[in-house]
Amino acid sequence: MNIGIIGLGAIGGSFAAGLRTAGYDDVYGIDIDEETIRIALESGMIKQGGTNIKDFLPELDVLILSLYPSQIAPFVEQYAPFFKQGLVLTDVTGVKTTIIEQVRAVLPPKADFIFAHPMRGSEKKGISGADHTRFLNANALITPIDSNLEENIQTIEKLYKALGFTTLTRVSPEQHDEQIAYVSQLMHALSVAVVNSIQASDETLTFAGNSFQELTRIADINGELWSELFLNNRTALLDSIEQFEVELNALKQSLIENDEHTLKQLFKQATTQRRHWY
Amino acid sequence: MNIGIIGLGAIGGSFAAGLRTAGYDDVYGIDIDEETIRIALESGMIKQGGTNIKDFLPELDVLILSLYPSQIAPFVEQYAPFFKQGLVLTDVTGVKTTIIEQVRAVLPPKADFIFAHPMRGSEKKGISGADHTRFLNANALITPIDSNLEENIQTIEKLYKALGFTTLTRVSPEQHDEQIAYVSQLMHALSVAVVNSIQASDETLTFAGNSFQELTRIADINGELWSELFLNNRTALLDSIEQFEVELNALKQSLIENDEHTLKQLFKQATTQRRHWY
Repeated sequence: MNIGIIGLGAIGGSFAAGLRTAGYDDVYGIDIDEETIRIALESGMIKQGGTNIKDFLPELDVLILSLYPSQIAPFVEQYAPFFKQGLVLTDVTGVKTTIIEQVRAVLPPKADFIFAHPMRGSEKKGISGADHTRFLNANALITPIDSNLEENIQTIEKLYKALGFTTLTRVSPEQHDEQIAYVSQLMHALSVAVVNSIQASDETLTFAGNSFQELTRIADINGELWSELFLNNRTALLDSIEQFEVELNALKQSLIENDEHTLKQLFKQATTQRRHWY
Repeated sequence: MNIGIIGLGAIGGSFAAGLRTAGYDDVYGIDIDEETIRIALESGMIKQGGTNIKDFLPELDVLILSLYPSQIAPFVEQYAPFFKQGLVLTDVTGVKTTIIEQVRAVLPPKADFIFAHPMRGSEKKGISGADHTRFLNANALITPIDSNLEENIQTIEKLYKALGFTTLTRVSPEQHDEQIAYVSQLMHALSVAVVNSIQASDETLTFAGNSFQELTRIADINGELWSELFLNNRTALLDSIEQFEVELNALKQSLIENDEHTLKQLFKQATTQRRHWY
């Protein structure tokens, strides 16, 4: 099976390195950066590679698009004429419904696209973040659509298992986006808003403890990527922010009214839920 | 120097254990729980101890009140008649202006109260959380008031240094409360509101990654203590929440307007500030 990976950054590079380590010999890498290809070849992450996808596309059975959300559908549209019959494509993006809608409009019948979301980000950018152990014990979400062939879904799931993913969960694209808005995008929105507050100053760290450091970690954010993720999921994210605001307003109201009883109830509710989870 | 500690929980117990380790022999412990006193004596955290403060108070030169905010002023009022001339009191609470106002109204002239905030919390409760290494490399804030004698401030600072605190910063009570509202209380409010959201469910962890786990850690909160901390600082906390909301609203507005340019600017601002700090 010939596997192509487009975009050998921290995620795509980790797919390449992990698949090679798992015994998949025929891994081909494509990147716009020649130096990245050189490093990938030298380190054995890929069997062959280059900057021109057309050199490899006709031979590929599986193609992993490690691209930004906005690049997925345009790629499919541009290169569809060169797809091998039966090509299985997959992506790694953190939003699904908008991407799926865009891809569906341009995907040729001879190809199948299995939409997936490996749940293990990277603070590192570029091929220096490639790590064959990145996905060990990670979770992934697969969001099948009607046109997917079961065998193709299983092909992608098998690759994920080989990479070390432990839990693969199939969910609807809509559920994926609603839940990701809450557990991931809302966290990033809150962290960014905390750091952007007018209260932020050079004196902040004199007063800050662990919780501030932890909560603001993800405010160091890849703006190019996350602006796409936010905007592609903006309805679900706005809903999630509004549901969060309901609870923040309840806290505020208890402060305004000096209402210790309600405040304690809110704390108790949170403690119970948090302990139920972890 | 005879040092008394009231409340041998995770914080008070760590003060006791740390002071004994640092060579302060004459450490006396008072707690409402007899079993706690027994453990403290057996483990050598204290020289003597008991449940009745009156047995020790007349001999004490320094008294550390490791009590809840609401207990500080009532304690001072009740036991002032038994204070030794020149007693130096100190507290460990995370709010200052309201506590100071309450204490000032009842503090006798023969005693001085150095208000302090050791910045190292505990997830553990009770004496089992006592640890002589707890305060190594921790920071502390001292909030002097006009009536404090410089030598008494230095007495407390010396004890903190002996416990392993590295940075002791003197700030005004008002600045303390404003900054703590931002770096600590706001974090707890956000975490609680996230966990209390209607979006929370048994499925959440299928989708959650590191950021969700980190950001919700402090939603497992001691409601008895934190309701007091919040309500004693509610004006500053409400201000801090409102300043946070200004930034959250800016993010929301960029989503509503599908405004990628503004969104990227907000992310860039956050990234720059976060990297400036850490």
